[in-house]
Amino acid sequence: GRPLGLIAGPCVIENEAATLRCAERLMTICNGVGMSLVFKASYDKANRTSVTAFRGPGMTEGLRILAKVKEALGVPVLSDIHSIEQVAPAADVLDVLQIPAFLCRQTDLLVAAAKTGRVINVKKGQFLAPWDMKNVVGKIRACENENIILTERGASFGYNNLVVDMRSFPVMRAMGFPVVFDATHSVQLPGGAGTSSGGQREYVEYLSRAAVAAGVDGVFLEVHEDPEQALCDGPNSVKLNDLPELLKKLKAIDAIVK
Amino acid sequence: GRPLGLIAGPCVIENEAATLRCAERLMTICNGVGMSLVFKASYDKANRTSVTAFRGPGMTEGLRILAKVKEALGVPVLSDIHSIEQVAPAADVLDVLQIPAFLCRQTDLLVAAAKTGRVINVKKGQFLAPWDMKNVVGKIRACENENIILTERGASFGYNNLVVDMRSFPVMRAMGFPVVFDATHSVQLPGGAGTSSGGQREYVEYLSRAAVAAGVDGVFLEVHEDPEQALCDGPNSVKLNDLPELLKKLKAIDAIVK
Amino acid sequence: GRPLGLIAGPCVIENEAATLRCAERLMTICNGVGMSLVFKASYDKANRTSVTAFRGPGMTEGLRILAKVKEALGVPVLSDIHSIEQVAPAADVLDVLQIPAFLCRQTDLLVAAAKTGRVINVKKGQFLAPWDMKNVVGKIRACENENIILTERGASFGYNNLVVDMRSFPVMRAMGFPVVFDATHSVQLPGGAGTSSGGQREYVEYLSRAAVAAGVDGVFLEVHEDPEQALCDGPNSVKLNDLPELLKKLKAIDAIVK
Amino acid sequence: GRPLGLIAGPCVIENEAATLRCAERLMTICNGVGMSLVFKASYDKANRTSVTAFRGPGMTEGLRILAKVKEALGVPVLSDIHSIEQVAPAADVLDVLQIPAFLCRQTDLLVAAAKTGRVINVKKGQFLAPWDMKNVVGKIRACENENIILTERGASFGYNNLVVDMRSFPVMRAMGFPVVFDATHSVQLPGGAGTSSGGQREYVEYLSRAAVAAGVDGVFLEVHEDPEQALCDGPNSVKLNDLPELLKKLKAIDAIVK
Repeated sequence: GRPLGLIAGPCVIENEAATLRCAERLMTICNGVGMSLVFKASYDKANRTSVTAFRGPGMTEGLRILAKVKEALGVPVLSDIHSIEQVAPAADVLDVLQIPAFLCRQTDLLVAAAKTGRVINVKKGQFLAPWDMKNVVGKIRACENENIILTERGASFGYNNLVVDMRSFPVMRAMGFPVVFDATHSVQLPGGAGTSSGGQREYVEYLSRAAVAAGVDGVFLEVHEDPEQALCDGPNSVKLNDLPELLKKLKAIDAIVK
Repeated sequence: GRPLGLIAGPCVIENEAATLRCAERLMTICNGVGMSLVFKASYDKANRTSVTAFRGPGMTEGLRILAKVKEALGVPVLSDIHSIEQVAPAADVLDVLQIPAFLCRQTDLLVAAAKTGRVINVKKGQFLAPWDMKNVVGKIRACENENIILTERGASFGYNNLVVDMRSFPVMRAMGFPVVFDATHSVQLPGGAGTSSGGQREYVEYLSRAAVAAGVDGVFLEVHEDPEQALCDGPNSVKLNDLPELLKKLKAIDAIVK
Repeated sequence: GRPLGLIAGPCVIENEAATLRCAERLMTICNGVGMSLVFKASYDKANRTSVTAFRGPGMTEGLRILAKVKEALGVPVLSDIHSIEQVAPAADVLDVLQIPAFLCRQTDLLVAAAKTGRVINVKKGQFLAPWDMKNVVGKIRACENENIILTERGASFGYNNLVVDMRSFPVMRAMGFPVVFDATHSVQLPGGAGTSSGGQREYVEYLSRAAVAAGVDGVFLEVHEDPEQALCDGPNSVKLNDLPELLKKLKAIDAIVK
Repeated sequence: GRPLGLIAGPCVIENEAATLRCAERLMTICNGVGMSLVFKASYDKANRTSVTAFRGPGMTEGLRILAKVKEALGVPVLSDIHSIEQVAPAADVLDVLQIPAFLCRQTDLLVAAAKTGRVINVKKGQFLAPWDMKNVVGKIRACENENIILTERGASFGYNNLVVDMRSFPVMRAMGFPVVFDATHSVQLPGGAGTSSGGQREYVEYLSRAAVAAGVDGVFLEVHEDPEQALCDGPNSVKLNDLPELLKKLKAIDAIVK
């Protein structure tokens, strides 16, 4: 199996300086533990629970900042795209185009993204069985793009709660593409805080360790220097200072199961 | 309470003649039982399980056909919109703009639709608690549009299955807007047929009766002259011939609980 | 179909006087609306959340009181049994032996109960699919007892929550035996109040109406003169004063669907 | 943390020779990998799906065989008890009294078992939230017995399916008692095979690895020389020959996280 990789970054691009600083810190940490990094950050959180919540700098400014991160640090960058219009400008900058979970069945978006030849990371919808991702894979492969990543981010489990079914990793890996565990979204409590989604950062480490032990190709983590001050998804973001210890454990577990 | 209304039509616009014929049949049936009708049909099924499945005539042709239905028969028409670009042309023709379940939290789409002043019918995501629809309502009301309909179409229940929680009707009605039960999508088995979604048409009547008895303002049904020949969602569509009997029962139940 | 019947009574036998008074009130109410009554009350709540909660008078005293109710009022009586030792004394008094949901798969208890020839009411486990009740039915029929009632009381839906899947009624009725909807246990929030189970009495009416509209043979309701003072399951018990209005609606709905 | 221990044995006592042979093999394997063993086997499977399925030799004969295993091999033995009458004879022989999941809230059984002073292993009901096990713990501690083990065996997830929520391990361990992961029951598909429960043996290894990585004190595995020939739960039993490799991996993962 491939060595375990990391996709990490802040939930949202808060500003250029903070984004660069975060990416630099992440590179230092990943170099320290010997792990590859893809830097992720969103330019527009289009489905915040509340209409007044901070959404990010928008696509143009966001892609500019991500291009700068890429150029300055030489790290591959990933962001999520929400419509066909975003595909071309995003593919100019991004190494990985990410399809959000709720759009994972949208044929046109998948096809447009696939045709760019970029790596496509599809998050499995909370409403989808792992085996049903084969239809998603089929839509991308029909465009002769085999650069596919599948990401688990929890399944609906009653109301305002998600559960990670660890069987999904072997099920999706059997499709022949790398599978990533998104630990920070998996501990969200959707809508659970009334006017925003709650989160259970305290379970990120347990679930990440479990997922790596079950067998995954990468881990996806939203991080922040100071999660309490984060403009988005603070309750489930990992503190940068806690990351090195976590990654060391994950690497050690990964070495046993691969 | 308002008298029970019906939103009905084929899953997808198959062609002009079939669509007009279906709308005419529906009007005759609704007149017969004394029930108001909103005609629904989709012009593009953008998230079919398989990339090769029939998707419909596209927006331009689809809206042309719906405009014809509206003009010829004087019936209000509803269709679902998937992106901001579709809002303006759709609002030119449609009386009701429908937001699909998976997009129910997309702020920009909700806001763009709301600003047209049209009636907005939002389907509750399969991954959303009924009380969380208050945030969706808030996004529309922030645009000073109070023409809101909320539609229940089932909640994720394990894999490849949905369950209708009848508590969602009183929960959502307490928000002050009409609530509709989408009986035909609620009996879908998502992805359950391997390369397409399965359906359990046999439960449409039971669930519709139950929902009306729990208390709803309308029922949403996908219908077809011959569901076995439908180009989309045949397994959960109601046969037009079976509709009058069903509607009579629903009206009688509605009269008891309102 | 059979006319709709009622199984009702207090959650637990609090004392002789209160039990008789409740049964009398219920008979008056049922006579008033023209509905048959089976009186239910438990003599021992063996699985209260807390070890210090009130459990009831025990089997011997409880059966004595139920025998008195039966004799004084001529109403059939039902109670739940928890072990094989309870079967014989219970069958001496009770018209209906009820198997609690969590014991619904216990072969020995089902067989012992079945062999008495009494009516057996089995509550479907919160962890069981409706179609799996056919195996339960098979265990009883293997003892040549065809006096079977199957009761829906909600299915596990995430944590501390139950959902009533209205498809379960047609599924279980197709097995050829009467099906009852237990409305008051279906609105329990298991463990939801920390050291006791919470309840949502406000949904009893909505769910009962829905279940009757879907089609059931009977409704099961826990009632109390003053639910706030009930020694058990107050939060989900129906106030006796509210019962006549509810039953009238249920009867009217039942008349439409049968 | 405690070093990882194993609870293992056949689902049911098939006969004396096979039971002794299995226990011997397990001891050899556990000695080989340096892991403690508690031998488990059931004497009566009281809730088989079908009334005609093999249930075991009964309590008296079963306890005789387990006493023999204990005496011959010096291994602690565990079995599950289903009623208060079984507590005293079982406590004479068994080192660990196991409370089945469906009985985990039964106060009398918990209390009777607790009073023997034996170790009590309670399986969490498929219908229970992990935090609700604190009430179960409270019932045992009220009898001044602190020898408690809590076992996860999956939570209801839709119909005929279970999911293991790895958050349950830290939640239950925070109660201060050892927590065990029952890997073989967690991969059952309850009722999923029509007249018996299906199973997914292929996921035992993935889930065990994940649970150990999340952090548990022990793993519970049903094993068989030849699962295809097992008289009970073959579809989810682990082949003895596959066990040493699995245990080595689990030990290595455990060493990283403790």
